[in-house]
Amino acid sequence: MISLKEIRGGVCAPKGFAASGIHCGIRKNSAKPDLALVLSAVPAAAAAVYTQNLVKGAPLLVTKANLQNGTAQAIICNSGNANTCNADGVAVAEAMCKLVEQHTGVPAEDVVVASTGVIGVPLPIEPIENGMEILIAGLCNDGTGAAKAIMTTDTYAKECTVEFDLCGKTCRIGAMAKGSGMIHPNMATMLAFVTTDAAISPAMLSDLLKSVTDDTFNMVTVDGDTSTNDMCCVMANGLAGNEIIAKKNEDYHAFEAALHFVLEDLSRKLAGDGEGATTLIVCTVSGAKTKDDARKLAKSVAGSSLLKCAVFGTDANWGRVLCAMGYAGAEVDVTKISVRFCSEAGEILVCENGAGVPFSEEEAARVLAEKEIGIQITCGDGTACATAWGCDLTYDYVKINGDYRT
Amino acid sequence: MISLKEIRGGVCAPKGFAASGIHCGIRKNSAKPDLALVLSAVPAAAAAVYTQNLVKGAPLLVTKANLQNGTAQAIICNSGNANTCNADGVAVAEAMCKLVEQHTGVPAEDVVVASTGVIGVPLPIEPIENGMEILIAGLCNDGTGAAKAIMTTDTYAKECTVEFDLCGKTCRIGAMAKGSGMIHPNMATMLAFVTTDAAISPAMLSDLLKSVTDDTFNMVTVDGDTSTNDMCCVMANGLAGNEIIAKKNEDYHAFEAALHFVLEDLSRKLAGDGEGATTLIVCTVSGAKTKDDARKLAKSVAGSSLLKCAVFGTDANWGRVLCAMGYAGAEVDVTKISVRFCSEAGEILVCENGAGVPFSEEEAARVLAEKEIGIQITCGDGTACATAWGCDLTYDYVKINGDYRT
Repeated sequence: MISLKEIRGGVCAPKGFAASGIHCGIRKNSAKPDLALVLSAVPAAAAAVYTQNLVKGAPLLVTKANLQNGTAQAIICNSGNANTCNADGVAVAEAMCKLVEQHTGVPAEDVVVASTGVIGVPLPIEPIENGMEILIAGLCNDGTGAAKAIMTTDTYAKECTVEFDLCGKTCRIGAMAKGSGMIHPNMATMLAFVTTDAAISPAMLSDLLKSVTDDTFNMVTVDGDTSTNDMCCVMANGLAGNEIIAKKNEDYHAFEAALHFVLEDLSRKLAGDGEGATTLIVCTVSGAKTKDDARKLAKSVAGSSLLKCAVFGTDANWGRVLCAMGYAGAEVDVTKISVRFCSEAGEILVCENGAGVPFSEEEAARVLAEKEIGIQITCGDGTACATAWGCDLTYDYVKINGDYRT
Repeated sequence: MISLKEIRGGVCAPKGFAASGIHCGIRKNSAKPDLALVLSAVPAAAAAVYTQNLVKGAPLLVTKANLQNGTAQAIICNSGNANTCNADGVAVAEAMCKLVEQHTGVPAEDVVVASTGVIGVPLPIEPIENGMEILIAGLCNDGTGAAKAIMTTDTYAKECTVEFDLCGKTCRIGAMAKGSGMIHPNMATMLAFVTTDAAISPAMLSDLLKSVTDDTFNMVTVDGDTSTNDMCCVMANGLAGNEIIAKKNEDYHAFEAALHFVLEDLSRKLAGDGEGATTLIVCTVSGAKTKDDARKLAKSVAGSSLLKCAVFGTDANWGRVLCAMGYAGAEVDVTKISVRFCSEAGEILVCENGAGVPFSEEEAARVLAEKEIGIQITCGDGTACATAWGCDLTYDYVKINGDYRT
């Protein structure tokens, strides 16, 4: 394991990145910022993963085209409107890139564009156009303003920043993400933007991003709804001065570990701040036959509406854990499953060999009352393991989504 | 279409069937009956479909063994305890069959046994043993007592009864079902028991049951959780005196239409009475490329947590309909989709060619405020269609499932 240090700064912590976040008027509430810009001083290697939903937001289509050559230099992202299922969606997303070019000199085709919010309402370009000057004026070395501007129903801005060495050169990775609802990523997730000053080739960066998101963002579930606008994008501008990573050497693995740390941290934050959530659920499956089985099992348990309600009610209803494993679509021998609930308040075994064991309901309720709870599942089928992150299902989830648009 | 008449009587309406439902003490609340018996005067052709969950309730294993020969004469079913994930589960389920033999003379291997309720709590045989005499004494020609005894969180007993002719012979089909939560059937569903006095061979009956459940019970979703104890069983005792249906002739299709009517009626009732539900959602997809695509699309929309919350909030958030179609795993051309919301209060087009059309939010809210709403989706990919039944997601679903066991 490489040595990592968590620092502050978000997407601006790596050398050569600046960011800004403002309220431009897409949202009615002027207290909520709705437009973010991230700018690199030099062109950066860039890669992204996108939602697997067949309905794709227009910004994703434009970003995908712009990242064909593996290079990007800026990110523009609005909240309050997803720019999805609109007849003029692609034209508006392209206009957003063009505005960045006009105001920064970064070519439109080197701009990553993203939108998040309500689907099917045309996104007006005017507020963005009118806001560009203030947006540019706000560029600074703190990523939090931008992280706040991409939030929808998130309750706080999600950032993670680490510092680590690659052969004596200090490198940094900074990141911001937004999540909350419509969270059940498939191959990519929510919106997450990662910056780094490490030098790495676009091909390596793309490989890495895919493999790390499979174990992090793609293991998060809030409500089983895979969004139309999920995207995770990483920009590496190379200003740390390390020898460029162009093959799977030691540096590659060090960078991979750092990226994994950052994306896992954000995954936990996204799940714990799921819409209406009061509890972060960390479901770990070990002893599964294959990695794919382990992932399916962990995600099925973390995503079960019934289990999520039980956690909300601090009810140690382990039968729902087994039920969710049974319909996960994974190969599993039910008679070998054991289940433990754990948290800072303690650990309690509730099921062994697929059947219940006596336990104290009071103690179990105490364990489940914490802000973060673990569900540790052991199968007897092999050696593969996986972790999924989810949250409880609460009255507030229903409330938030019963009148999202109004 | 054959001529059908809806009548009363439930599982007892067909000739030669009697039923009973009592409180024997599995549930603490003595006002809630918890044990049901259905008895045929003569052995009946019988078929069943079961949950696809790898974790299967012990009663299902015993029933499956007993139905190997395609014959059954009695059904015993308790609520309040699923008899699943218990070390002694199979022994207890077999003991239940043995008790039926002792008290009725029906061989234990001709008994269908089922249980529904909490998973992982041993089911004591004593209350059932002690209750058998009263259960037998209660046998009568009204199926409602039995239908009430299989309920868990259902708010009312679900029955359906029809009368129709097969070549001049009057036949009847009676049925009862329970649902409410952990409802996302896969190949079978919840608990449903169907009786008929029509004569039909076990092989034909089994084929028919599979094909009809695919379009009815398997298109119901309440919360995406496929239960461990789902089962739908049909018994045909032949006392109507019709010529036995042993091939796919006119009578087969008439019987199929009648069975389809009954199972569709129960599907609607199950979805509309989903845990906490205030609205029945009927999602119809037409113009899909294949039947399988149509089913996936309809079920994905009806099962989306976000869409279910929007219906609860009477919010015409059609973007969530398109989103759920996009991740359904079906082949669909997004740019050809149109969506209408409809109910007794009217009909409103909200999306055409994959993009929004102007509509009155007030009118849409009025349409969505009804007890039953339709989501009519037209694709432009082919001629296949399917219907799925679901319900809204409400505060009460969370409440019911936050403290189910306690």
